Parts: sequence; structure tokens; C-alpha cells
Amino acid sequence: MSDIDDLTSLAARIAASDVSPVDVMDAMLARIAAFDADVLAYECIDSNAREQAERCARKSACGVPLGPLHGVPIAVKDNYLTADMPTTAGSHAPGYSFAREDSAAVARLRAAGAILIGKTRTHEFAWGTETPPTRNPWDLTRIPGGSSGGSGAALAAGLAYGALGSDTGGSIRIPASLCGVVGLKPTFGRVSRAGIVPHSWSLDHAGPLALSVRDAALLLNVLAGFDAHDPGSADVPVPDFTAQLNAGIAGLRIGVCRNHFFGANEVDVEARVEDALDDLAALGARIVDFEVPNLQYGLGAIYAIELASSSAYHDRGLQQRATAAMNDDVRTLVEIGRMVTAADYLKAEQLRALLIDDFSTVFERVDVIVTPTSPVTAWHRGQASVVTGGLEESPLAASWRLTYPFNLTGLPALSLPCGFDTHELPVGLQIVGRPFDEVTVLRVAQAYENVHRWNAMRSPIARSVVQ
Amino acid sequence: MSDIDDLTSLAARIAASDVSPVDVMDAMLARIAAFDADVLAYECIDSNAREQAERCARKSACGVPLGPLHGVPIAVKDNYLTADMPTTAGSHAPGYSFAREDSAAVARLRAAGAILIGKTRTHEFAWGTETPPTRNPWDLTRIPGGSSGGSGAALAAGLAYGALGSDTGGSIRIPASLCGVVGLKPTFGRVSRAGIVPHSWSLDHAGPLALSVRDAALLLNVLAGFDAHDPGSADVPVPDFTAQLNAGIAGLRIGVCRNHFFGANEVDVEARVEDALDDLAALGARIVDFEVPNLQYGLGAIYAIELASSSAYHDRGLQQRATAAMNDDVRTLVEIGRMVTAADYLKAEQLRALLIDDFSTVFERVDVIVTPTSPVTAWHRGQASVVTGGLEESPLAASWRLTYPFNLTGLPALSLPCGFDTHELPVGLQIVGRPFDEVTVLRVAQAYENVHRWNAMRSPIARSVVQ
Repeated sequence: MSDIDDLTSLAARIAASDVSPVDVMDAMLARIAAFDADVLAYECIDSNAREQAERCARKSACGVPLGPLHGVPIAVKDNYLTADMPTTAGSHAPGYSFAREDSAAVARLRAAGAILIGKTRTHEFAWGTETPPTRNPWDLTRIPGGSSGGSGAALAAGLAYGALGSDTGGSIRIPASLCGVVGLKPTFGRVSRAGIVPHSWSLDHAGPLALSVRDAALLLNVLAGFDAHDPGSADVPVPDFTAQLNAGIAGLRIGVCRNHFFGANEVDVEARVEDALDDLAALGARIVDFEVPNLQYGLGAIYAIELASSSAYHDRGLQQRATAAMNDDVRTLVEIGRMVTAADYLKAEQLRALLIDDFSTVFERVDVIVTPTSPVTAWHRGQASVVTGGLEESPLAASWRLTYPFNLTGLPALSLPCGFDTHELPVGLQIVGRPFDEVTVLRVAQAYENVHRWNAMRSPIARSVVQ
Repeated sequence: MSDIDDLTSLAARIAASDVSPVDVMDAMLARIAAFDADVLAYECIDSNAREQAERCARKSACGVPLGPLHGVPIAVKDNYLTADMPTTAGSHAPGYSFAREDSAAVARLRAAGAILIGKTRTHEFAWGTETPPTRNPWDLTRIPGGSSGGSGAALAAGLAYGALGSDTGGSIRIPASLCGVVGLKPTFGRVSRAGIVPHSWSLDHAGPLALSVRDAALLLNVLAGFDAHDPGSADVPVPDFTAQLNAGIAGLRIGVCRNHFFGANEVDVEARVEDALDDLAALGARIVDFEVPNLQYGLGAIYAIELASSSAYHDRGLQQRATAAMNDDVRTLVEIGRMVTAADYLKAEQLRALLIDDFSTVFERVDVIVTPTSPVTAWHRGQASVVTGGLEESPLAASWRLTYPFNLTGLPALSLPCGFDTHELPVGLQIVGRPFDEVTVLRVAQAYENVHRWNAMRSPIARSVVQ
């Protein structure tokens, strides 16, 4: 199956009966058995995965209509509820128990024929960007990013063909960037969060991590749609996200926000993104530089909202002292959350409304915005600081600086690989669009990927063959 | 002008050149000079009021098209900004200064030809239901309700033909009920709050107090409409609110919420409302009893939201210790507001979402909901407690119990007089509608008023003639 390098090509081969879902699953389970002891991407593997593959194979043989993901093994972040696997949300704190039922996104994947191979590790309650103990397949001494680090690592190691993540401040895009895969945080309201363990109701987004831009589009086709069970869900039309992938970008206006997003990144990161902007210009896009006011207050705003929401969600856990069993970093955040005042929360929401207006004004002049995804590439486990723009700061502080603005504003944002730093670690390019205009975001990403298929240069683990 | 008993009839007579705006204004200024020393409804009178009336008279003589409120004297609650009069928001605390420009509602009234005769007193920063020092025209030893108490008292005393109020937990409807006039809190988003001193952004509503139901409809015609300067404003169609006033209510389903709204009211209040329900049934409406869950948590929710918002708005005042100069009751509330946590605020918002759902379900079975407006009639100044349903409680606690649910839910709610208690004090009937269905609310109110024009039985002050 050496010519199968993404989910789209695998699904086509299965649909054409060129490969059997059982063989695909056996190969994948063998890879997981061989390599996941090193990568630690999975929290658990579905004991019925092979049986499901057999059912898929029988269905293929019957000639009944098959879903677009028929027989494809997909990984699910372990904060999505699943009927056939337990959910931990990455926590072993007592007093939390999660229903054994399918979240809305999982149900949609199943209905499309996908086989949910297992649950991938998440930073505890999705509250961090390291995802211990998962390792980065490009360098096992480094973290994969988070909080959807298990999903990013599984894809980068060749242990799944697609994965679900969730993104509250960057948790899909950061591991996508650090693991060298594609990650798409759709517009707030586009994909149902029903059945995902909440982190921060007004910031949480559900979306896919993928091996290619077209895979992200295909997965979004399956995942998108209104759901009355998610109070944030938007009842808006759902286009075919794959239809305009190759429409090109001649004449498109690409905005570059020169404050906040540039000047405080690792040198290699900034260089790779400038190269990518040159590539996009060479494809006929017009580069438009601009600045956005108020971004310097965004960190205070997202912290107030995220801390407060987390503390509201964990209120019972706090009262029952269950939070004492959490990892120190997450316990501290959950406990600090109680100290956010409602008055400050309201000011944070007002700042958020300003930012939404500010970006709305920008989108009168540009069609998408392009930024680095993360100021830094994958850091070492236990590393206490990184240096960006000459300043030392914590990896957490640096890692989400360029992603959280689009959780505050709810704008669709995709990360795709745009090359490597001097340590051979992937660098991510972030493409941001107007509300509900994922089509244009994907179109720009595809245009770039048609020139540079960096994610086809697979990690050392992905290139390893089961002995 | 003895046949002129509301704004609608006055406007018609002015339009027909039967009466001159100058004579109307002179008579009104004479009444204010004679009686407002007792009622204390006005914070200030516009020194240019007579000059404006003269301009109106000249305009009448020119034959140019005139607005629907041409030459009509209207009072404005003193938390609406006005270009030609100062704004105090009922406070003498230092460090607060308000722009000398017209709020959106005031600008609309002026554009419709109204003369803004003066600013009416409000409970300090609209944070209370007594409005000291204003007195109730039905009994000068009693309070007029609040916070739009000056507007209610001005109308009940015959010192204005219409008035603006604002309503965060009942502040239009409570003084309307206690003063025996009509008060309409439209749907959240229907009337712009731009240029009103904020109390609680997500609960504040702007709307009219009026001498009759048709006046309320006429004023809403002028006031309603989208305004990008109010983040809560709704871009929805604006119907003619007077068109269906006399369509009758045969077959209409009138809901009566038997929990929360009944059983803890003064005996006379409950009796008058039951009489009104009989009257509405006699007009062909069908009475549908029901109960709504979660209402018992509403008080905690609105307090959390209102306190938090107030404390956010007054943040600078708190930091500068300007709040120390506030009246004790309001100072306490503003200072306590700092103690609301963001986590509790979020839970309050979640309860609010539940209540919106609960009422939405009710409105599948009924067309309007009818309740008492206030559990109590006007109480004495300084009175520390009232007794409702056998329980002693503070007047503040009792007074807004039946109104605040419709600030949490944003539903349109109107209060109109439905008789008197044994002290000859007015009792108010509250009619609540679906979102943006003020038309049906007004239709039910008009049907009732066609049978009982209680507000035509004017207060002792209103019946007094200038000597």
C-alpha cells in the first residue's frame, strides 16, 4: 500500500475494492503494536476494531451503498464520548465519570463508514499543550504539542489515517504544527461539540487532524452540520468542502498581520513562513500587510474566559477535592479559575467583541490571513523555557500565542506543514478565513500543498516498517 | 382639552390644528410648576421646552409633513443621554460625567416631532425599585416604584403625555403597575439602548411608559428598529404595532403560569388578576394553566448577572472610591458585585439558557402569558417589609419577583392597570409574548383596556386643576 499516503487515497482504494478494510486494519494494528509503545499516542485501542473491519468488508461485498469513509481507521481524541470505549479526558482524578455513548462527531464518522480504531491521549482535560506522556514521532525526546497531542502523534507516526481533535486555544493546530500534519479548527458553530467533555463552552471547537488538505476537507464534509444538542451550533448551509480545493488562488488577497503574529517567533519559523508567503505570491495571490489593534489584551481575555469556564465545569470536582488528584499544572489552573471575577469575565467578553469587529474590518480588505501556527517547533519534554524574539518565556505561553486569537473570534483556522527547522522539526503555517468560509481556507492550503507536500516527508517512525 | 386623555388623542388634535403645541406646552409647564413640588417626578425641565413648542407651532403652520408625535410633550428618564439637558442617572457621586448628546431613543422621539419636556428621576443608576424622592401621585406618602419611578409618577400625575423608561429587572413595569399606567418592556434587541447609562448590558431594555395601550404601541412604532451602536440590537423586521390593536382575542390561548407567579402575592393583587383572567376568557380567549421548571433559581441568576455587570460598569468608580458617595443601598450592591465569581456568572447564564428553552416550550401551547406585574401595590416610603403569601420580605425582594424572569429571557412584557386594591392603589396586569411578538401582547392589552379603562380613572393629582 505504498501509494496510499492519505485518507482520501485509502478510501478510494477501499471503495474500488483494491484493498480490503481487514488488511488495512491488520496492518494498522500491527503498526500500533510495533510503535505505539514508543510514541504513546493511544490511550486505548478498540477491542472490536478488527471485527468492525470484517463487518465493513462484508458490507463492501454486498454492493450496498457505502459511506465516504468506509473502512477507514480513524483515531478519536479521548475527550470525545464513545459508546464502545471508555473516556478519560486524560485524567485519573476520581469523581469524574463519562457516559458510554457516542458524541455527535463520532456518530457522524461511524455513519460515514469509518472505523474508530482507538482513543488518543489528550493533555489532562485538554488544559495544556504538551500531552504527556505522548512523544513526537519526529524526535521521541520532544513533546507532540497539545492538547490533541495523541491525535497529532498518531497521524505523524502512521498509526491512523485521520483523527478528531478539539481546540480551545490552539489544541488542534498546535499538535498539527509540531507533528507536521494538517489540523483544521472550523468556524465556531460549524461542527457539533455535543458529547465532548467541555473545557470552555464559548471557546471549544471540534475538528479534524489529517494527513493532507484534501483529507481535512473530506473529514469536514462528514463532520459539519447543525446540531440542536450543542448550544453553540450554527444553523447555516454546509457546502461541499472538497469542491473548490483546486480552484487556485490567482487574485486572492492574502493578509499578513504584522503586529502580534511576527517578530516574536523562532528564526526558522519566521523564515519558513516568509518563504511560504513568497510561494503564495508566486501562485498569483496578492499579499496585503496590515495591523490589528487590541491584540495585546487578548491573552488576558482568553485566560479569564478559559479559567472561569474550566472552574465552572469543575465546580463539583473542586467542592469534592477531586481536583487534588490532577496533575499539578492542570490542578493549578482549575483552582486559580475560582479567582476570576465576573466583572473581569465581562470585560474579557467585551474585548472579544472588539476583536471580532477588528478582524471583520480586516476581512473587508483580504480573503484570508496567513500567520505562523506556533512561534516554536516541538520542544523537549520537561523544557522550562523557549526563546522567541530574544525573550525567554514558558513553552505554554509561546505555543498558543498565534492560535488563541481565533478561538476568541471563532474564525476558521487551518495549520499545514510549511517546512522544517534546522533540527528537522516541522514548522506550521496557519491560514485563517472569514466566518464559515472554510472553503477559501482549504483552497489556499491546497494551492500551497500542491507545491510543497511537506507532510508527505514522513517522520522517522512513519517511515519505519513493522518487522 | 378635557377630551384629551392620552398621547394618541393629543397628537391627533395637534395634527388637525385643533390645539396648538404652545398651548399644550404652557398647560403642561403650568401643571409641573403647580404639582411637581409635591410629586418630585422631574430631575430637570428643559429650559427650551416652550421655544421648541413654538417651533413646532410654526412648522404646523407651514404645511410641511409632520411626525407622528408632533408637538407632544414627552418625559425622558434621566439615564438617557440628552444633548440639551444634563444627565445624572440619579446619582450625585463624583467622577461620573455623561456626554451631552442624544441617545438613540431620544433622537428617534425628536425625529418624530416630540418635545422632550424634561428628565425624570430614576433610582440611583437604575439600581432599585423606590426612586427616592419621587412620590406616588395616588398617595404621596408612598413610593412610585422604580427605577423609572419619575416617568411613572409624571404620567400618573398628568405631567407628561408619554415617557421613556428602562427595564433591567422590572424598572419600566413596576412603576407602571404602582402608578396605574401602561409600561412596555419590548423584546431584548427591539429598541436601541445606545446612549443609555448602562446598568447590566445583557438585561437592560429600553421602552415606553404610556397613558394607554395605543400610546404604548404608537411610541414603540417610533422607538423600534435596528441600531448597530447597540451590540444587543436585533436586525429584525419592525411591524406597525398599532395595526392589529383591535383585532380582538377570540380563540387566543392565554397561559397562566401557576408556579412562581401565583400564591405569594397580596390578596387584592391576586383577586384583581383573577378577575382580569375572567374578563379575557369572556372575550373569547382560552385560559391554559401550566407550570415552568427552574424558576426558583432565577433570582440567584439575575442577581449574579446584574451585580457582576454593575460592578464591571462601575469598576473605575470603585477604584477611585467614587462609589462611597452613592446612597447606601446602591453602594452596597455595586460593592458586593465585585464578589461574584466568573464561574457563578457562567452558571447563571446557563440557567438563563434553560429558562429561555422552558418558556419557548410553553409558547408552543399558548400565545401570551398573563401574570400579576408586582406582588404588591405601592408601599410607604421607608417601609421595611411587605407581607405576601403569609411571608414577610423586603419590598425590593417582592417587587421584582414577577418581572425579572422576562429580563432573563428577553421576552416582551407589558403592564397595564387592572383595578385597585382596598387602599385605592393601582394593581398591574402583566402580559408576556413570544420573542418579537409585541403585536399580540398589545392586542391582548387593548382588548382588556377596551373593557376596563382603569388608567382613565386618574390619580388625585392628575385630577387636580391648576389654580
